Amino acid sequence: MEARLITELLEQYLDRQSAPLKLRIRIYLALRQAILDRALAPGTKLPPTRSLAEDLGMGRNTVVRAYEQLLVEGYIESRTGDGSYVSEAAQGGLRRSPPKRLLGTRREGLSRRGSIVAANATSSVVQRGAFMPGVPDIDAFPFAIWRRLLGKYHSAEQGHLLNYAHTGYGPLKVMLANYLRVTRMMPVDPKQVIIINGSHQAIDLCARLLADHGDRAWIEDPGYWGARNVLVAAGLQVTPIPLDAKGLAPTVEDWALPPRLIFCSPSSQYPTGTVLSLDRRIQLLENADHVGSWIIEDDYDNELHFHERPIGSLFGLANKQRVIYLGTFSKVMFPGIRLAYLVVPEDLVEAFVIGNSELYRGGRLAEQAALAEFIDEGHFTAHIKRMRSLYAERRETLLSAMQSRLGDVVMPSGSQAGLQLLYRFNQPIDDTMVAAQALAEGVICRPLSLYYLNQEARQPGMNLGFAAVPVERIGPATDILTRVIERHLK
Amino acid sequence: MEARLITELLEQYLDRQSAPLKLRIRIYLALRQAILDRALAPGTKLPPTRSLAEDLGMGRNTVVRAYEQLLVEGYIESRTGDGSYVSEAAQGGLRRSPPKRLLGTRREGLSRRGSIVAANATSSVVQRGAFMPGVPDIDAFPFAIWRRLLGKYHSAEQGHLLNYAHTGYGPLKVMLANYLRVTRMMPVDPKQVIIINGSHQAIDLCARLLADHGDRAWIEDPGYWGARNVLVAAGLQVTPIPLDAKGLAPTVEDWALPPRLIFCSPSSQYPTGTVLSLDRRIQLLENADHVGSWIIEDDYDNELHFHERPIGSLFGLANKQRVIYLGTFSKVMFPGIRLAYLVVPEDLVEAFVIGNSELYRGGRLAEQAALAEFIDEGHFTAHIKRMRSLYAERRETLLSAMQSRLGDVVMPSGSQAGLQLLYRFNQPIDDTMVAAQALAEGVICRPLSLYYLNQEARQPGMNLGFAAVPVERIGPATDILTRVIERHLK
Repeated sequence: MEARLITELLEQYLDRQSAPLKLRIRIYLALRQAILDRALAPGTKLPPTRSLAEDLGMGRNTVVRAYEQLLVEGYIESRTGDGSYVSEAAQGGLRRSPPKRLLGTRREGLSRRGSIVAANATSSVVQRGAFMPGVPDIDAFPFAIWRRLLGKYHSAEQGHLLNYAHTGYGPLKVMLANYLRVTRMMPVDPKQVIIINGSHQAIDLCARLLADHGDRAWIEDPGYWGARNVLVAAGLQVTPIPLDAKGLAPTVEDWALPPRLIFCSPSSQYPTGTVLSLDRRIQLLENADHVGSWIIEDDYDNELHFHERPIGSLFGLANKQRVIYLGTFSKVMFPGIRLAYLVVPEDLVEAFVIGNSELYRGGRLAEQAALAEFIDEGHFTAHIKRMRSLYAERRETLLSAMQSRLGDVVMPSGSQAGLQLLYRFNQPIDDTMVAAQALAEGVICRPLSLYYLNQEARQPGMNLGFAAVPVERIGPATDILTRVIERHLK
Repeated sequence: MEARLITELLEQYLDRQSAPLKLRIRIYLALRQAILDRALAPGTKLPPTRSLAEDLGMGRNTVVRAYEQLLVEGYIESRTGDGSYVSEAAQGGLRRSPPKRLLGTRREGLSRRGSIVAANATSSVVQRGAFMPGVPDIDAFPFAIWRRLLGKYHSAEQGHLLNYAHTGYGPLKVMLANYLRVTRMMPVDPKQVIIINGSHQAIDLCARLLADHGDRAWIEDPGYWGARNVLVAAGLQVTPIPLDAKGLAPTVEDWALPPRLIFCSPSSQYPTGTVLSLDRRIQLLENADHVGSWIIEDDYDNELHFHERPIGSLFGLANKQRVIYLGTFSKVMFPGIRLAYLVVPEDLVEAFVIGNSELYRGGRLAEQAALAEFIDEGHFTAHIKRMRSLYAERRETLLSAMQSRLGDVVMPSGSQAGLQLLYRFNQPIDDTMVAAQALAEGVICRPLSLYYLNQEARQPGMNLGFAAVPVERIGPATDILTRVIERHLK
């Protein structure tokens, strides 16, 4: 092919490019595409870089670098003393037709489980404002201290904390074991503590190490939407178990199809706030032991209780080691920190350490070291204490604002813990419509019906987060909510 | 029961306790266990706190707090004006026997997939020292800059970066899209970039969104051990595909059982360093498109190449969008940072954003913001440049140290990129024995045979990481290695 034709051809390819790229990359891409399209056939001799550069009106070096790149990647070959040629290799793949047996096996797009996850997105794009549930007040966090500690452990001297890690940071495990012993009556050896990047990952780890594809998992209904999606994506068959006033209420029929995993929040059920009663706890532990179920106890916000003492953990009550305890730093520190922990029975320690390392590859020891020192220096407990009294005031404000405006229409439910209050309606109402209209007026109010898996069991309600709402914002936001609800009831 | 008997009973329970707990918790646990054991039957009246405290020789307040806790949790009941009684509820569970149908369904311990993961642990407890492969030199990282940026984004004013996040930090995606456009010839829209907590999580996300339980996944053999375990834990049937001098070499028979996922490292195969040839690239893309396979392109250390220009990415070559590109910050920043990214075809963007949020719950935007500014201010490129020349020197040192000592016995293989060099033996040798003995003498030398899934295909070799080894340490460590190998060859 004549050099002039090649220049014209390349000009056409250059014209077709839309992205604003550097010239060196543009000429590379034009040449490459021409070769791939066979517009420049194998064996074609390319013009010398000097003349091509002149014809295209660009610097010679630009063309030289494009040629070099194509050479390295095998699109062109250099014959000593004779210039550059389009290589045979570039056409290699095209000559072979794929084996016939392949026809008809094509399957597009997402996997079945991927489609389910994508279609059931329940985490909200909106994550801030009155009354977003489940989020703490970040403004009051002692960031100056946290910055100091983060900085301390991000240095070349602390290189051992900045590499891959096989297991979590030892001193943090010791701190947590002590903390759980005192606050949750849990006899815990530090080695039983597994540090994880957030609760979702923790649930996922349990699902994969303890259950196989197709195994049954129970979740509370209504319950935490996040757990459901994680369990489904791990291939488990998720069964919703209803609640009553004493908490999770599986029937004899439910137990007849025993679950491999039971995901529950006994201290303060999410979102109802129900505390699992003692007799139910004992029964749950006994039956789980009898049929060989593992219980995941999600203790997501028990640090933030408003009565004198927290409820004892299920883990601490269990003699037979069928309980895996899940705690998080999202509510006490800040959600973006993405640190949570599992406490596992001794028999499972080794498998969980290995599994955590193999499935997610460890790291982030510097953050864990900062957190350990944060706890050790007393900032953790001090922050919890400070937030408890701040949240208690906001909680009281919301309770009385709701009582004075909507006392006849709604009723608060649940425990004395957490960052949110669940209100149930005394009369039928479409809570998703209420939520949509409230959101349109700037107030987040998660409808209770959203938390149900069993659609027939749905009851209307509102899950209202108060923790991150300044006291003076609570009244006005409640006013908006009241107007929306009154409009619906008329 | 007489108060005196109750005191004696509790003393026995207290004596049995081994853990060094606070007195308040000890008396609580003793009472609770006595109730659970029915040593204190339902309806038993407990002694007044004052007298029990005297009998046990402890402060009254200690006993009061234990009683209060038991009351809150439902173990005891308070009858107004008449003291505390062991509640009926505490025995509630015990009276009911589990349904008969449950018998025989018990299954212990780990799941099948969990057992496989736990039994195939290949990540090493030892992560530092000559010649640990895959780790960068952390000492040379500009931590002062990184601390400043981390600090900047960890403050109450940046609260929006410290909450849960639905998607990654936008400006970081823009930075990465620009970076990939220039360095990897990839036309990328920022929205196609998905920020992930490390490569393992990225592989896991692909496996679950794109493949179902039982689907086939190809991995390179030898290949990256980490991918194998992640894919197995996602329920995929992993098929090892051998390599030849041109890289991944699937046969027509292999294609006849088409894979749903193909995990590969075309720019610099791990651990052999082989660059996938152009004809193989084209053929792989065509066949994958024809049978509907997704290709995961692991571009784990292409930033650290030692020739003038990096190899173009498979993603950039693909017209039909069957490639998902995987990049990591572990090698250029530091491994403990746990940040990686996927670049997905446009059609998959929404599903990947949702899936990432649902399965792992987003956060860590402050780190991502720090990283974006680190890139924007030019520190990222400057650091890569600095490390490239540092690593090039170490690489040359290792090459000549090995050549002079073991030039007749081993041969380096592979590309001009990466943090490690693969050496193959010219003669049969048990490389795992060599590795074990070298480790005993303080030198890490990962045996090549460890990276094979197909045991019959195993060839002996050593994967030697040089990047984190100071130049002056390379000679002495090579001496040790040489002595161990010579001992074996005799």
